[in-house]
Amino acid sequence: MEQYQAQLNGIFQALADPTRRAVIGRLGHGPASVGDLAAPFDMALPSFMKHIHMLEDTGLIRTSKAGRVRTCEVNRDRLAAVGGWLDEQRAIWEGRTDRLEQFVTEEKPE
Amino acid sequence: MEQYQAQLNGIFQALADPTRRAVIGRLGHGPASVGDLAAPFDMALPSFMKHIHMLEDTGLIRTSKAGRVRTCEVNRDRLAAVGGWLDEQRAIWEGRTDRLEQFVTEEKPE
Repeated sequence: MEQYQAQLNGIFQALADPTRRAVIGRLGHGPASVGDLAAPFDMALPSFMKHIHMLEDTGLIRTSKAGRVRTCEVNRDRLAAVGGWLDEQRAIWEGRTDRLEQFVTEEKPE
Repeated sequence: MEQYQAQLNGIFQALADPTRRAVIGRLGHGPASVGDLAAPFDMALPSFMKHIHMLEDTGLIRTSKAGRVRTCEVNRDRLAAVGGWLDEQRAIWEGRTDRLEQFVTEEKPE
């Protein structure tokens, strides 16, 4: 449970930045090299690499190196943790709505 | 668009903390006072209030004061922005899968 919470901390933190979200979006189209990913951003490569490392540390992307080219791909399973957390919230909410409905039905005059 | 990105930055940042996620989860069951929300946490009230303020600033919760009691409730519309962003990623991914399927189908031998 603690590991799950720590994982969520990292994932949400990683997604709290527009550059990192844009990288995730771009990788949705398929794997890409760091060079291609960096191209649209007006940013020095070391700064861009910090974003890549953070995404890799949280497991949101995987990278592999062939020769001088590092290729990135998105790890959709890790991204699914966000959806899982939202589903938990929805389940809490729906449980509450069900109980409200039950209450209203039981209170109905005959 | 920039406002949407800034909003997402704030929301993801707010969710990158286990105390704030727990508050959202608790409020899924219904509105609660700050005192009740703070009770399960081994935390000084001013520290806890920082979390409440951050959640309120991003619009994830709304608070109202009656006498000396401040009541909080979750703003599910704001939380839905996270689901919206995930849906965007899924749409990108599905577009890609559709194109792959098309390619495979077209390449099939007669």
